[in-house]
Amino acid sequence: MKKTTYPTPQDAEAAFYEALEGGNLDAMMEVWAEDEEIVCVHPGGERLVGYAAVRAAWAQIMASGQPLRVRLSDQSVLSGMMIVVHSLHENLSIEGARRPSVPVVVTNAYLRSGNGWRMIVHHASPAPQGQSAAPQRPADDGPKILH
Amino acid sequence: MKKTTYPTPQDAEAAFYEALEGGNLDAMMEVWAEDEEIVCVHPGGERLVGYAAVRAAWAQIMASGQPLRVRLSDQSVLSGMMIVVHSLHENLSIEGARRPSVPVVVTNAYLRSGNGWRMIVHHASPAPQGQSAAPQRPADDGPKILH
Repeated sequence: MKKTTYPTPQDAEAAFYEALEGGNLDAMMEVWAEDEEIVCVHPGGERLVGYAAVRAAWAQIMASGQPLRVRLSDQSVLSGMMIVVHSLHENLSIEGARRPSVPVVVTNAYLRSGNGWRMIVHHASPAPQGQSAAPQRPADDGPKILH
Repeated sequence: MKKTTYPTPQDAEAAFYEALEGGNLDAMMEVWAEDEEIVCVHPGGERLVGYAAVRAAWAQIMASGQPLRVRLSDQSVLSGMMIVVHSLHENLSIEGARRPSVPVVVTNAYLRSGNGWRMIVHHASPAPQGQSAAPQRPADDGPKILH
């Protein structure tokens, strides 16, 4: 049960970083939507999907008890009446090459404009090697979706 | 001037990956909103902000002419009536430690729920060292991309 109301995204963001600096897991998870679709990618890490997975990772991070300082900068805000966010994996390879594909974790955001949908964010980061498939699902369920 | 209309975010995403595989810069940039706030982060790369910077990076990537194959998997879609996306840098340090802070590029997304705003996406990736400040200016010759 969520107890706190964040009246704006900025309030939620402030609470997120306060929880991170304070190592406060309950406060951290209060900020997150209690949803099976939430996505969290820590630097250099795999994609975590769903409340339980996201919570478990934060619990592990905060278990060290080391007080962090986080200085934020260069914030920009992308807002609009209709924004949709996609989370996915790209498995990149060079055509014809025999090297295994490189797994990449991606967040794409799209904005509905006067003329259909357009991309506003593409954030790609290397996934840990050997994790090209779905870290949260059995690894043999093949490519999902696309187009 | 944008000529193509993508009726859904999936259409825009399909066009994005088709342009990427085909190395087609014009098609790639057709997908992006022509906006000073758009954000692109290539794997291991700095944050690029604004249409010109995003285009320049794609031009460089595509200049190699190497045909890419991109297999997508594990796509999930986060949608709602009100979503806001924040892009920012975290500069992380351990309290009291003398080591320089670690620059991290972050995309956070928030969803308006029945009870205020909550986080639905936190995507953090290591920024190239020495780039903690405003990377949207031309990066003199820092580490460069690769998609």
